[in-house]
Amino acid sequence: MCELLGMSANVPTDICFSFTGLIQRGGNTGPHADGWGITFYEGKGCRAFKDPNPSSESKIAQMVVNYPIKSCSVISHIRQANRGGVSLENTHPFTRELWGSNWTFAHNGQLENFEALDTGNYTPVGETDSEHAFCWLLSQLKTRYPSPPEDMSEVFHGIASLAGQLKELGVYNMLLTDGAYVMAYCSNNLYWITRRAPFGEAQLLDEDVVIDFKQETTPNDVVTVIATQPLTCNETWQKIESGSYCLFHYGELVSSPGR
Amino acid sequence: MCELLGMSANVPTDICFSFTGLIQRGGNTGPHADGWGITFYEGKGCRAFKDPNPSSESKIAQMVVNYPIKSCSVISHIRQANRGGVSLENTHPFTRELWGSNWTFAHNGQLENFEALDTGNYTPVGETDSEHAFCWLLSQLKTRYPSPPEDMSEVFHGIASLAGQLKELGVYNMLLTDGAYVMAYCSNNLYWITRRAPFGEAQLLDEDVVIDFKQETTPNDVVTVIATQPLTCNETWQKIESGSYCLFHYGELVSSPGR
Repeated sequence: MCELLGMSANVPTDICFSFTGLIQRGGNTGPHADGWGITFYEGKGCRAFKDPNPSSESKIAQMVVNYPIKSCSVISHIRQANRGGVSLENTHPFTRELWGSNWTFAHNGQLENFEALDTGNYTPVGETDSEHAFCWLLSQLKTRYPSPPEDMSEVFHGIASLAGQLKELGVYNMLLTDGAYVMAYCSNNLYWITRRAPFGEAQLLDEDVVIDFKQETTPNDVVTVIATQPLTCNETWQKIESGSYCLFHYGELVSSPGR
Repeated sequence: MCELLGMSANVPTDICFSFTGLIQRGGNTGPHADGWGITFYEGKGCRAFKDPNPSSESKIAQMVVNYPIKSCSVISHIRQANRGGVSLENTHPFTRELWGSNWTFAHNGQLENFEALDTGNYTPVGETDSEHAFCWLLSQLKTRYPSPPEDMSEVFHGIASLAGQLKELGVYNMLLTDGAYVMAYCSNNLYWITRRAPFGEAQLLDEDVVIDFKQETTPNDVVTVIATQPLTCNETWQKIESGSYCLFHYGELVSSPGR
């Protein structure tokens, strides 16, 4: 299984604290030694740092920890390969353009019979079930909405329905963002927490690191973190139900069916 | 004007020496202070490092200099903005998928009336003439070859013809790669050099750095570097004629009309 990490915030925020915990699971406290990646949005643009090497030993991961890039939308992934070899083209997150925006995607799980999904104009570059599913999903959206849709809530509701079809093929936990919205679709394991004033202290589970968010934030900050497993041991994380999703828009939960 | 840098090599090679010279032109020895980017291929995958800040001050650029990533195909760009604001989405190189491969593109120059070019299924994310031209070019190729063509020399010959149409709109120096081929199309300024055994010493123009390639290479290495202006002061660089191109395949020149 891989580890997912996402962030949605109302002000550009660094994800160093959570990422510090996550990368320990890439070969150190976890078995996910087959590469890692993280994609940050800054406006309409995004930049990714990726490495097919274990995150706990990666110099690029160390740079990401030490050089806080501030962003409102972040998706990260550390990989334990199941489908597709260990290589850069198979390293998540994947980014493709749809409706003139960069869409970024990461997946945890494993799909059967994914090759039959028609990916239309989005051809996978690597061999993973994940990239194939992402290409299919974008192709379906492009067919449904040839030009940019106005009601994005409706679009994400449709994406949840497509994700439900993928879940039928196996295990499908997904993080997806267009830079403004961050969507978390849960097949079996996905937790989230929204931090806002009054901020307190948090203690990482995977490393002996404590952060006092009061020192790092302003009273108006709203920051949501999503992860495969809770990253801290002294806060309450919410689990997303199997087959359901949470949609965040600049930190705030805007849609979650069944809640 | 911006600065372009490309590399094509028959073995994974680091570009630190040339990049060290290039980044000095981003705000230090040159006026190109509006961001920079570099994209490395490793197999079918690629990774990019980008920063909208001047390269001469960028911590990420320093990491790229100090952490040699070895690659057979590299494209880099430092920007002096003319069309499109200083932002991450306007920072070259641009990468898009075509025929299941990552294609990477950087442009130096300025185009008029580029908005009329139909970009088909490739919608620009930013506002630059460059990304628009790249999207148009890919769209034209996808229309001409709906499935992956076999004869890539013919494809690049067709790309040169499309580049010629773009040159009619202004100044169009271009670097383009699919990871195996690196193409350099020249509108006014583009130079290249192929280094092979016996290797000698090279002295950077922009900084007091000398490299002895004998220490860094094996006798079979073939490494071509392409740049807007020669980067070294003690070697002979070849200028590409206006309206012409050079196509390199793992270091070797494979096509150059008129030579």
